Amino acid sequence: MKQPKIGQYPFLAEPFHCGFDKQLLLSHLGNYLLNAADYHSSERGYGVSCLNTINKTWVLSRLSVELEDTPKVYDKFYVETWVDGVLKFFTSRNFKIGDNSGRIFGYGRSMWAMIDTETRQPTDILAIQEGTIRNYIDTEYPCPIAKPSRGKNIELSTPTRIIDTRFSDVDMNGHVNSIKYIEHILDLWDIEWYQKHRVWRFDIAYVTEAHQGDRLQFYSTSDSSGLHSDIVITKKGDDDNDVVVCRCSIDFAYLV
Amino acid sequence: MKQPKIGQYPFLAEPFHCGFDKQLLLSHLGNYLLNAADYHSSERGYGVSCLNTINKTWVLSRLSVELEDTPKVYDKFYVETWVDGVLKFFTSRNFKIGDNSGRIFGYGRSMWAMIDTETRQPTDILAIQEGTIRNYIDTEYPCPIAKPSRGKNIELSTPTRIIDTRFSDVDMNGHVNSIKYIEHILDLWDIEWYQKHRVWRFDIAYVTEAHQGDRLQFYSTSDSSGLHSDIVITKKGDDDNDVVVCRCSIDFAYLV
Repeated sequence: MKQPKIGQYPFLAEPFHCGFDKQLLLSHLGNYLLNAADYHSSERGYGVSCLNTINKTWVLSRLSVELEDTPKVYDKFYVETWVDGVLKFFTSRNFKIGDNSGRIFGYGRSMWAMIDTETRQPTDILAIQEGTIRNYIDTEYPCPIAKPSRGKNIELSTPTRIIDTRFSDVDMNGHVNSIKYIEHILDLWDIEWYQKHRVWRFDIAYVTEAHQGDRLQFYSTSDSSGLHSDIVITKKGDDDNDVVVCRCSIDFAYLV
Repeated sequence: MKQPKIGQYPFLAEPFHCGFDKQLLLSHLGNYLLNAADYHSSERGYGVSCLNTINKTWVLSRLSVELEDTPKVYDKFYVETWVDGVLKFFTSRNFKIGDNSGRIFGYGRSMWAMIDTETRQPTDILAIQEGTIRNYIDTEYPCPIAKPSRGKNIELSTPTRIIDTRFSDVDMNGHVNSIKYIEHILDLWDIEWYQKHRVWRFDIAYVTEAHQGDRLQFYSTSDSSGLHSDIVITKKGDDDNDVVVCRCSIDFAYLV
C-alpha cells in the first residue's frame, strides 16, 4: 500500500520529560522529531532497519526547530514529517508540531546524509530501492521557517564547559547520541535563565562523530542581550588538535 | 466505571533510548515504570494531577527492578502495575514487564509516600477520596522478586564521581529527576563493562531531595567480583555536612 507523503505521529509530553516549568524539554521534543523521521522512513521502505540490511544508514547532519510554544506536561500532540527534497547525498526533511485542537507549536527542518556503514562514506540515496524516496517528496506543504544553519565558527579560546562522555551518552551506533548533545547544550544555561527566557529557535549541525570517553569542550559566545548564542563543541583528535563535533546556535525570547 | 486492579500500558523501545547494545537503557525503562504508575493512579482517582489540586503529591521512596532480559530497540512491550499494599504513609506498587508473545522481561517493586506539597510532610494516604485506593489492592498477582532495599551505609571517603546538577536534571517539582539519578549511577561504569555484564537487579532508595546547582558526590564500593556494588549519593547540606540523597545497589550478571 502506498503511504501518504506526510506522516503524522502522536506523542504525549511525559511527566519525567518535562522540566521545572512543566514544559516538554527541547531535548525530548527533538527525540520525538527523530522518532517521527524514523517511523516515516521505515513505513516507506527507506528506514534505518531496512538500510542496515544493506550496510547503509541515515546520519543526521542538521536539525533546526522553531517554536511558538511548547507542549506542557500530559499534552497530546503530533509530529508531522515529510521529505521536501532529495539530492544524491542529502535529504531534507521537515517537521510540524501541533495538536488536534489546531494549535501549532512550531516547525522543524533537518538534513540527512546516507552513509555506508562499512566505509563511513556518503552513499547515493537515489540508488536505494530504485529511488523510491522520490515518490514521497512534498514541496507544497508549508514549513515557514528558515533552513537549518551550518553554525558559525567562533573563537575557541576558553571552553565554557568540559564533559567526559559516558555510557548513557552513546547511541546504538556507538556514537554520542544526537539528542544528548542538545541536552548538554541546553544545560549551559541554568533554571534562573529559563525562568525568564524560552528557546524559540535552535539549530544544530553535526560535523564529526564522538564516542564514549571523548572529552567534549563546549565553547560559546552570546550577543550583548544574551538572546543569541553560538556554540561549538570540539573533541581532541588523533593528533591532539581540536576537532569540531557540532556547531549550534540558539535564539531565546523573553517569556511573557 | 470501576477500573481493574491491574493496569497494563504499552510501550516501545525507542531508538534514541537504547544504548550501544541496542537494548533499552535501564534509566528509560525506569521512566516507563514511573509513567505506568502515573497513568494507573490517575485512572483510579489518586494520580498526581488530581492530588495537586488538594496540595498533595506522590513521592517515590524506593524502586527496584529485576530483569531476566531487556527489550531491544523497536520491541513492543507492556508494563503492568498494581498496588499490593497501602499503609497510612506508604504504598507499595509492583510492576511486571512483558510482551504479547508471553515473554517476561522482569519485575519491579516500589514504595511511595504521599506528602503535603506545602508542609512537605507525609500525609494520610487513606484519607484521600475516602480511601478509594483500598479498592484497588491486589495481593494475589505474583511479583516474584525481593522487596526494595533501603540501601547500605558505606564509607564516604573518596567520591567516585562528582557532578554539578543542571537544568535538564530537574523535574516538574524542581527536584533532581528520579530517572536522572539512575542515569548518573549507571554512568559510573563504562561501555567496556557493559559489553560483558548486564544489570539484573537495581535498587534505589531516595532519601533527600536535591536541586539544580547541588553538587552530587557519588561514593561506591564493589565486592571482589565487581558483580555487586553499593552506591551512596550525597550533597552538601546547609551546615556543609554531607547529606545522603540516594542509596543504591546494583547486581550485575555476566552476559552469556
